[in-house]
Amino acid sequence: MMLIHFMKNNQDLIEQSINELNWNIAPHNLYEPIHYVLVQGGKRIRPQLCLLSANLFGCDSKQAIYPAIALELLHNFTLIHDDIMDNASLRRGKETVYKKWNTSIAILSGDALFAKSYQYLLRYSGKEICSLISLLTHTAIEICEGQQLDLDFENEKTVTIEQYLDMIRLKTAVMLAACLKAGAIVASASEEEQQLIYDFGINTGLAFQIQDDLLDVYADVSKFGKNTGGDIAENKKTYMSLKAMDLAQGEDLNQLHDYFSSLHFNREDKFSKVKSIYNKYKVKEHAQDLINQYYDRALASLQRINVEQVSKQPLIDFVSQLVNRDY
Amino acid sequence: MMLIHFMKNNQDLIEQSINELNWNIAPHNLYEPIHYVLVQGGKRIRPQLCLLSANLFGCDSKQAIYPAIALELLHNFTLIHDDIMDNASLRRGKETVYKKWNTSIAILSGDALFAKSYQYLLRYSGKEICSLISLLTHTAIEICEGQQLDLDFENEKTVTIEQYLDMIRLKTAVMLAACLKAGAIVASASEEEQQLIYDFGINTGLAFQIQDDLLDVYADVSKFGKNTGGDIAENKKTYMSLKAMDLAQGEDLNQLHDYFSSLHFNREDKFSKVKSIYNKYKVKEHAQDLINQYYDRALASLQRINVEQVSKQPLIDFVSQLVNRDY
Repeated sequence: MMLIHFMKNNQDLIEQSINELNWNIAPHNLYEPIHYVLVQGGKRIRPQLCLLSANLFGCDSKQAIYPAIALELLHNFTLIHDDIMDNASLRRGKETVYKKWNTSIAILSGDALFAKSYQYLLRYSGKEICSLISLLTHTAIEICEGQQLDLDFENEKTVTIEQYLDMIRLKTAVMLAACLKAGAIVASASEEEQQLIYDFGINTGLAFQIQDDLLDVYADVSKFGKNTGGDIAENKKTYMSLKAMDLAQGEDLNQLHDYFSSLHFNREDKFSKVKSIYNKYKVKEHAQDLINQYYDRALASLQRINVEQVSKQPLIDFVSQLVNRDY
Repeated sequence: MMLIHFMKNNQDLIEQSINELNWNIAPHNLYEPIHYVLVQGGKRIRPQLCLLSANLFGCDSKQAIYPAIALELLHNFTLIHDDIMDNASLRRGKETVYKKWNTSIAILSGDALFAKSYQYLLRYSGKEICSLISLLTHTAIEICEGQQLDLDFENEKTVTIEQYLDMIRLKTAVMLAACLKAGAIVASASEEEQQLIYDFGINTGLAFQIQDDLLDVYADVSKFGKNTGGDIAENKKTYMSLKAMDLAQGEDLNQLHDYFSSLHFNREDKFSKVKSIYNKYKVKEHAQDLINQYYDRALASLQRINVEQVSKQPLIDFVSQLVNRDY
C-alpha cells in the first residue's frame, strides 16, 4: 500500500512535469516531434528510479525532479536517433519520428532534445549541479559507445559473451545506474553510497536486458505486448544466440550458423527450429541463472547501503517487477 | 606585429589543445570520425574569438582555453550532422563523415562529440562554470532551430528577408556571439559588457554570412578556394536571391522564378543569366550596404566597451579580416 502510494505520487509528479513542458514553439518541425515522442509515455522507468533513489536516501521527490526529467529527456533523445540507425518503423505502437517526418528532422529533433535535457537539468540550483551535469555527460557518452558497439556487432562474425555484456552495460545499464546515482547525489549521499546505488543500477540493468533477450524467445505473447522471435528473425546478437553458439555442437552449431546468416528463412519455421536448439542446450536456464546472479549482486549492493530496510522496499519492489516479467 | 603575435600564440594554443585530445580509443568507429574531422583544421575562428575576447577583457588565453575548445567541438558536431542533412559529399576538400563512413556513424559520432564538448567544458573549474554550460546549451538549441528553419525554407515558396536574417542569426551568428561571450564570462566581464560583446558577435556573424552569400556570386575564384555559383545552382535561398526576388520586376522576376524552380538548367548558363539580373538590380551593392550596416553596428557595440582602444585592435583586425574577404 505504502509502495503503491509512493510510486503513484512519483508517477504523477513525473507526468505532471513532462506535461508542463511547452513544445508548442517555433520552429514546429523541430519541436513537434519531441512532443510527439514524450506524450507517448513509455514506462518512465528512468525518472522513477531517480526519484525512488532520492527517496531511499531520505530526500523528497520534488528535489530530484529536475535531474529525473532531464534523464528522461536524454533517454528519449537516444531513442529518436537509435530508431534512425535501426530502421525501426514503430516505437510504442506508433510510427517513429524518422518514419513519420524524415531523417533530417529526426536527427535535428534528437539533437535539440539532447540540448534540452541539459537546459532542464540547469533548473536545478543546488551545489550538486556540476556533479549532475558531469554524470549526464558521462552517461550520454557511454550510451553512444554502447550503441556503436551494437552497430559494430552486426558486422562481426564472432562476438564473445563478455563483449556482449560490456555492450549492454554501456547501452542500457549505465543509464539506469545514472538515474539512481542522480537521486543519491541530490540527496547528498556519500560517495560510497553513490557508488553502491550505481552498482545496484548496473547489475539491475544487465539483468533487465538479458531478461529482455530471454523474453524475445520465451515470453507469453498474451502478456508480452509484442510478438516473440523478432531478434531471431533479424539475426540479432543477443545473450540467447551467443550462448547457444557457445554451447551447441556439431550439426546443431551448423544449423545455428545457417539460420543466423540469412534473412530469407520463413520466420515461424526459423523461430521454432532455433528455439528447439535453445531448448536442447538449456539456454533459457543459463539466461535465468545469469539474470539471478546479476539480480543478487544488485541486491547485495543495496544491502550495503546504510538505511533502514523498510526504506529500501519501494526500490526493491519496483526493480523486481521490472526484472521478473512473465514468461 | 603585436596582433600577429597575439593571434599566433592563440592559434598555437588552440592547435596544441586540439592535438592533445586523444581519440584513439574504443569503439574506433565512434571516435575515428571525430579525429578525422578535427585534424582537418578549418580556420578555428570560433576558439580564436573566444580567446581574443578573453584577452580584450584582460584575461590570459589559457584561462579561456577550455570553453574555446568546447565551442570548437560543438561547432564540429553541428557540421557532422549538417552534412548528413545537406547531402554534402565534401567539407574542407575531404569526404564528409557520412560519405566516408555511413549515416549511422555520422549521427552517433556527432552525438558523442556533442557530449564531449560538455565534458571538455567541465574541465573548467572556475565559479563561472554554470554560466558557461548554460551558454553552450542555449547556443546549441538555437543552432538546431536555425538549421531547422534552413531546412524548412527549402520547401517554402516565399521567405522574407527578415525571416532569412533571423535564420542566419540562429544558424551562424549566435555561435560566434557565444564564443565571444564565453571569453567575457571567463574574464569576469560585467553583464553589460557580456551583452555588448555578444551583440558585437551577432552583428559580425550576420555580416559574415551575407558576405558568404555575396561571395558565392561575386568572389574572385582564384582567391575564393571554391567555385562560385553553388547557391544559385542549388536554388538556395540566400540574401542575394531573396533580395533579387524582392527587387526584380516583370520579365526579370519571371525568369528568376523559372531559374529557381528547377535543378535542370545548364549550370554556367543559369549562373550567368541570374547574375546579370542581380547586376541589373544592384543586388551586390545592396548586400554590401547591409554588410557595412551590420559591421558598423558591431563596431558600435565594441566601442561601448570600456577598455582601452589598443586592446580592441586585435579583435577588430581579426573580424575585419573575416568580413572583408576579396571579391
